[in-house]
Amino acid sequence: MAVRVPVVEQILSANDQLAAANRARLDAAQVLGINIMASPGAGKTSLITRTVEPLRDEFCIGAVDGDIATTLDADRIAALGVPTVQINTGGACHLDAAMFQSALPQLPLEELDLLIVENVGNLVCPASFRLGAHRSVLIASVPEGDDKPYKYPVMYRGVDVLVLNKIDVFAAFEFDVDYFRRGVEALNPGLDFFPLSCKTGEGLDAWLAWLRKEVREYVSGNSRTDR
Amino acid sequence: MAVRVPVVEQILSANDQLAAANRARLDAAQVLGINIMASPGAGKTSLITRTVEPLRDEFCIGAVDGDIATTLDADRIAALGVPTVQINTGGACHLDAAMFQSALPQLPLEELDLLIVENVGNLVCPASFRLGAHRSVLIASVPEGDDKPYKYPVMYRGVDVLVLNKIDVFAAFEFDVDYFRRGVEALNPGLDFFPLSCKTGEGLDAWLAWLRKEVREYVSGNSRTDR
Repeated sequence: MAVRVPVVEQILSANDQLAAANRARLDAAQVLGINIMASPGAGKTSLITRTVEPLRDEFCIGAVDGDIATTLDADRIAALGVPTVQINTGGACHLDAAMFQSALPQLPLEELDLLIVENVGNLVCPASFRLGAHRSVLIASVPEGDDKPYKYPVMYRGVDVLVLNKIDVFAAFEFDVDYFRRGVEALNPGLDFFPLSCKTGEGLDAWLAWLRKEVREYVSGNSRTDR
Repeated sequence: MAVRVPVVEQILSANDQLAAANRARLDAAQVLGINIMASPGAGKTSLITRTVEPLRDEFCIGAVDGDIATTLDADRIAALGVPTVQINTGGACHLDAAMFQSALPQLPLEELDLLIVENVGNLVCPASFRLGAHRSVLIASVPEGDDKPYKYPVMYRGVDVLVLNKIDVFAAFEFDVDYFRRGVEALNPGLDFFPLSCKTGEGLDAWLAWLRKEVREYVSGNSRTDR
């Protein structure tokens, strides 16, 4: 097994180099990139459509949609009238910086303010591959259970924002918000946290206010540098 | 990227060789191995505890529990009084045959009839790494959504049994069972299908009857060979 370690390190290093180039390309075009990650079915596409609808008259938005197969999600986003590029990973369990790089020339970057990337549904692998986006967002969901920060620490440690979706079904599940948040705090202290329901709309305003502020600050030149 | 293809092929081939050795080890001890896979939070540990409770007086059962971090799940299973080995993958997104091999000597194999393996919560990567178990079981869950067969075809194509958990919350989600099953049938025709709720117990009897039959047929020497 020992020989595999340097190989993995080389791949990550190459990925990080490409991610840095992608970030520079976004910065040159003044586009804030956000990378949305989650388990299968947590609500990535739902949050994106719930975000694009109220913000598309305010900002120019584009999307990149990663999936192992089908264009189901990309079709839902494109139906909102925003330029959307589908990446079918052909079985791969995450987007990487090379895939994201190949999507960028297919978008009208110079016209965009915000580029939303939907990663492959996976709570493990996407955490290890930077794309070059400015912010990474994790969507947890109530039916998944309150123990996920403890069991998937790499993902929870690496993100800039945490959304908890499907709060409309709290009553149907035993989900201890305090236990969940203690797990998150231990890994990622002070992480921005937005409990919401893409179905009912509850809690969306706070998420939209955060994103609106991020885009405005970025466009006015106050960009932070994380992932 | 081209150089990576043969490397991946070699790893899979080595994994398959170890998986075959694991299978032979289980067969020598006359233990039926089942590999349970699912997204995070679909209910792997819940189904295992719901299976061990009614069957532990009928069969000798052991468990192997794969997690990226923590012993939360293994503790729940071990609390039922069955020998349980925890594999912490240290970040890896799936169990592989080498990890499974390392767990086997820690179990009283000669005494067991049934060995239940809980894989890492991931709907992508575990599908590509055989362990040497005799049957593979996928747990889908209602909150994940009815489109998962279409979006994660490799996993749905490769399993022997499909469980749909959390049917007690059908009313709270828009889940079209016909659409879901059409997707499954296209990938894996005639797949055994058990809709159930680990919470209420509804549907568990059919699943238990299937598993009971599989163990009895295996122990009496009528083993099929799939994964």
